Parts: sequence; C-alpha cells; structure tokens
Amino acid sequence: MSLITSQKIHINKASSSRINDVDFNNLTFGSVFTDHMFECDFIDGNWQNPTIKPYGPISISPAAKVFHYGQAVFEGMKAYKDDHGKVFLFRPKENLKRINKSSVRMAIPEFPKDVFFEAMHKILELDKDWIKSGLGNSLYIRPFVMATQVGVSASPSNAYKFMILLSPAQAYYTGEVRVVIAQQYSRAADGGVGFAKAAGNYGAQFYPTNLAREKGFQQVIWTDSNEHKYLEEAGTMNVFFRINNTLITAPTNDRILDGITRKSVIAIAEKNNITTEVRKITVSELVNAAKDGSLKEIFGAGTAAVISPVSAFSYEETLYELPKQEPSFASEFKKELMEIQHNLTEDPFNWRYKVL
Amino acid sequence: MSLITSQKIHINKASSSRINDVDFNNLTFGSVFTDHMFECDFIDGNWQNPTIKPYGPISISPAAKVFHYGQAVFEGMKAYKDDHGKVFLFRPKENLKRINKSSVRMAIPEFPKDVFFEAMHKILELDKDWIKSGLGNSLYIRPFVMATQVGVSASPSNAYKFMILLSPAQAYYTGEVRVVIAQQYSRAADGGVGFAKAAGNYGAQFYPTNLAREKGFQQVIWTDSNEHKYLEEAGTMNVFFRINNTLITAPTNDRILDGITRKSVIAIAEKNNITTEVRKITVSELVNAAKDGSLKEIFGAGTAAVISPVSAFSYEETLYELPKQEPSFASEFKKELMEIQHNLTEDPFNWRYKVL
Ligand SMILES: Cc1ncc(COP(=O)(O)O)c(C=O)c1O
Ligand SMILES: Cc1ncc(COP(=O)(O)O)c(C=O)c1O
Repeated sequence: MSLITSQKIHINKASSSRINDVDFNNLTFGSVFTDHMFECDFIDGNWQNPTIKPYGPISISPAAKVFHYGQAVFEGMKAYKDDHGKVFLFRPKENLKRINKSSVRMAIPEFPKDVFFEAMHKILELDKDWIKSGLGNSLYIRPFVMATQVGVSASPSNAYKFMILLSPAQAYYTGEVRVVIAQQYSRAADGGVGFAKAAGNYGAQFYPTNLAREKGFQQVIWTDSNEHKYLEEAGTMNVFFRINNTLITAPTNDRILDGITRKSVIAIAEKNNITTEVRKITVSELVNAAKDGSLKEIFGAGTAAVISPVSAFSYEETLYELPKQEPSFASEFKKELMEIQHNLTEDPFNWRYKVL
Repeated sequence: MSLITSQKIHINKASSSRINDVDFNNLTFGSVFTDHMFECDFIDGNWQNPTIKPYGPISISPAAKVFHYGQAVFEGMKAYKDDHGKVFLFRPKENLKRINKSSVRMAIPEFPKDVFFEAMHKILELDKDWIKSGLGNSLYIRPFVMATQVGVSASPSNAYKFMILLSPAQAYYTGEVRVVIAQQYSRAADGGVGFAKAAGNYGAQFYPTNLAREKGFQQVIWTDSNEHKYLEEAGTMNVFFRINNTLITAPTNDRILDGITRKSVIAIAEKNNITTEVRKITVSELVNAAKDGSLKEIFGAGTAAVISPVSAFSYEETLYELPKQEPSFASEFKKELMEIQHNLTEDPFNWRYKVL
C-alpha cells in the first residue's frame, strides 16, 4: 500500500512532559504512556497524515467498525537503552512483517515500511527520556491498526487508523507461573486467525483464563481445538519444553503465533549446541515425562515476559510440579537474550537495530 | 450485575433533528443513525450513569482494551411500525439473553434487564419518527458493549461501555445470494467463541469472504473447522436446506450462533406441518441432493436479511445452481415472519413486544 509520499510526519510536541509524575520503580505493565503517540489514517485508498502528537484520547464514532467487528491487529515490541544512552530495538523488521501479515488476514491494508521506521525513529527520539537503562527496563511499543469506517454492517472497513503507543516497562511477570493445559476451551481454529495478532484472539481467552485463575493458575497452555491432544502456545507466549537435555517446541501453523522470542530462543539454542526439536508434542508425552522425571523445564517466550519459567502444570485435575533447575535453560536463554537486547554483549545474529 | 438502582436514565435531547436530511428510500444498511444514542458505563463494579444523548463521536483512550483485545460483543434487533403508528420489537428478551451469554464468554459483566428495556422504550420514543411503516422497513437496533479500561496488557478490562445505536433500514440484501462452501478457512473452533456475538468473529471472516467475492459470490457457508465436512452457518445468518419437502438445519453448538430468526423459522415450519430436521448435515449430502435434484432450496435466516434465498453454491470449484421454486419455503417463511413482525397478522407465538 502506498503512502502519499510527499507527506512528511507532522510533529505536534507536547507542551510539557508528564515524566516526573511517573514512579519508574513501580510500573504496572502497559498502564502508563509516554508524552507522545503516532497516528496515521487510511482514507481513500492511501495511508495519510502521519502525525506525532501528545498522547491523549481520540474522538471516534461509536459506529466505527472496530467496536462491532473487531477488525484490528497489533504488535508488541520493546526499545532498550544501554548505559551509554544508546537506544535499540530488537528485530523490528519482524514486527513490521508480522503486523502486515496479521493485517492481510484481517482484510486490513498493509502499512508502509518506510513510514513505520520513520515513525519509530521520530517518536523514540521525542520520548527517549522514558527509556530507562538497566537490565529488565524497557519501553514497550504498541503499534496497532483499527477499522474506523462508520457502519454497522459486517463488511471490511474502507478507513483505518494506525497508531503507536509507548509504555515504560519493567519485568512483566513476577513470581511463579502455574499453567493449566486446555481440555475444553480453545484459542484458535484451523483455517482461523490464530497466527495473526488479531485483537479478538485475546479477548476470547479472558474467560477460560479467568477460570484457571480462580483455581490458582496464571495462564492456560492451549492445545489444538480438534482433539486437545497437541500442546500449542500460551496466551501471549510460545511454549518450550525441556525433556532431559532436549529443547522441544511446537511448529508454527495457522493457529499459532510465529513469535520473535521463540525464533530467537531456537537460534540461541542451536548456537549453544542444545538439541532442539521443532515438532508436535502431545499432552500425554508431557505427562509421561513429568511422571518419569525426564521433564526438566517448561517456559514461555514472548516480548512482554521475555522468558517465563513455569513451576507447575495441571492436567485432568492433576497437578504436576516441576523440579527446580539450577542452572536452567530458561535462565540461560533469558540472560543471553537480554544481554543482546541491552547491548551488553556481542550480537552474532544481527538482531539489534540502533535507533539513537 | 447490579445497577446503582437509584439512577434513572438521564436524557439529553438533541437540539434539532437530522431526519429531514435522510432519504428513506435510499438507505445503505447500517450507515445512517438516528438523533440519539444510549450509553451506560460499568465502573467500580457497577453499571452507572445510563444516559440518552445526541448521536455523535465518543472520546476514548487509544489504549482502551477494546482496540487491542477485541473484548466486545453486540446484538442486532429491529423495531417495526404498523400502519397505525404502533411500534413493536421482535422477541427482544432473546437478544438481551444472548448479549449476556456473549458477555459471559468474553469476560464482560452482564447488563441488567430492567435498564435494557427502559433504555429501549425511552430511546425508541425519542426517535420514533425514524421508524417508517411499510413491509420491509424497520429500525435496526445495535446494542453493544466494549472494554474501556486503559491498558495494553492482555487481561479483562475493569471498565466497559454499553451503548445502543439506531439505524433506519430497508431490506438488507438485494439480488441473488451465491455462496461458497468453506473448505480451507474457518469461522470458529470447538471450545471457542463462535456461539457468541463477539466482535472478533466478524472481522475474522472478512478476508475469506473477500476471496469469495472476487469469484462472484456474496457469502461463505462455514463448515466445521476440524474436517470441513458439516455445514454450519453463514457470516450473519443461520442456514436452512430444503431437500424434497423436508427442512433441515444444523443443530447449534459452541461454534454456531443460536439465531432468533432460525428458532422462529423452525417454529413456523412446525406450525405449518413441514417436516423439520435439526441435525448435522454434511457437504456431501448437499452435493448429492443437488446432483439428483432433491435439493430444492437453500436460504439464510437472520435479523438483518430476514430470509435470504441462495441461488447457487460452489464447492470444490464446481458450481451448483438451485432450481427456481414458486412458491418457495423461503418466501413463505419470509412472508409469515414479516407479517408477524409488522403486526399484519396474529401472533400465535407471542413474539411481538409492543413498545409504543
Ligand atoms: C499469542 C502469542 N503467542 C506468542 C507471542 C510471543 O511473540 P513474540 O515473541 O514475538 O512477542 C505473542 C506476543 O507477544 C502472542 O500474542
Ligand atoms: C453469525 C451469525 N449467525 C446467525 C445470525 C442470525 O441471528 P438472528 O436471527 O438472531 O439475527 C447472526 C446475527 O444476525 C449472526 O451474526
């Protein structure tokens, strides 16, 4: 999709910053936003009016299609600052590719690469003080697209708004993550939109996740919707299993998000000569491995949480506790990933993208 | 869920009406809205501040969860005016029940019945001039709920907005409806949210429906996501098949919306002693019936379109044209339904609900 190319990003700077009101040591993930946001509208077949303006409410018709038909996609990425004040993104081209893949599946026009990167540079420059250095600190970046055409008839919108919000973040999960293996509810269908970061995929998980929470679990590990036999992924993380010293993760398919952290973990594992199997893994294999002691670790991998070790899983009302591992694959991968992200080590994969 | 009961609906009347700007003979479905809208917020664990105000844009944070996680549900219903100016709804308690069922699945608090009906009465009274009498004319009513909490973390919102929009309507579909039987894409998973009117279910259908449109078809008939073997429903309609003189429709399940028009068609068929089978129907049964001439009709049933006869279907790149039926089940059901809705005949089922 083309952007009317003569248009530059229009910048409307906030008259004052809210940064001094923020306690950077007590951040709730995704709840505090920086001084600016980016906005670009798709009208008459073109992305137009790219604008950076003060973060604040938007005015929108209650009949806009996003509210009625969930025609919306998003991304999640992070910016990191090193101790010299340099700012990096982690594999941002993958996020652009993925939001456009999500958009195609949701009948949303793709967003142009040059504007995406120009917007990133400009807004991060404006809000760079919101990125704190130090391992674990980051600026969470939320690009998203919503259908804005007015109309309560179920057909694709002819107008869209692409936006970027920025939210300072510390580590996402605190404490142990206990998970339930899905037996009844499903996240995605074959031939559906599970591989896309489509808004509706997430709201649909809240109820079954609440049921898990009521029983003392934080997350659900989704299984295939046909037989609930194969392990797929968690709500916002891909999932890895360590059986003895082999790392196993499900192949991606049209139900599973092709996670950037997942890809990166696989690459780091291969570099470290860890035997890695990308293959279907059944719930019964997991249960048997838990029973015979060969299951050493389960962990989730995703931008928000980086790596989240799982301490126990529940299946058919039986609880399986995982052994403590020291050192663990999870902590090793987390360390290697974060050191690359924060510019504390070399970057053999060329994953860092310098912004400032 | 309780409403702070001392609160009455606050009414802020539009200073002037836009009704004279509207050409009621040239309405595009769902694109024109009446002078007023209803709004009620869920805050601090209660539905509060029920308000009718002039239709217009709302101010909302771009970080509201509805944009990111599709936590939103809706309903579709109609008001009809008879030649004496009386105004009726059609089985509105079913819509309230269903929006609350949808809400439960999407982790949204249920909306109180008394406020729902009070809002309907008050807003229809204010905007009654927008309801035109005459068979086929109606006022389409769109209640919906959206998650309004600010926060880009994937968990249920703690704040919601319930709204009602009104849109004058003529007949929904014009011309013949040609459909494609889904073989690759799916609408819903077992254990998913297909039975709910969740926003994301609709956006997810746009892309495969576009593919069908490009080939000259208007709609997709969805099949089960496991095997694409059983016929389920269309995008916004349940589907009926007439083989010889037997009426067949799929049973509802957690992938299929329990349509009010569907239920009503089944009841009318039974009253008219038409043999009706609510059972699984396979694509191959349909294809065989088309080949041997026993397939007489296919039609969709839903609030927007009422009854939509299908003139042809495509499966495995083969086109099956349906014979012209005169009289048809479709036209008979449509006539009986519309005469009940428009108060032109008796109402043996007690479906009409008088508002004014
Ligand atoms: C469903 C789902 N799976 C996995 C992931 C992990 O993907 P990534 O590593 O690219 O953040 C995400 C996104 O955070 C997700 O939403
Ligand atoms: C998916 C789906 N199926 C069927 C229907 C028909 O339901 P109803 O007859 O209650 O309008 C609708 C709603 O219009 C729908 O969205």
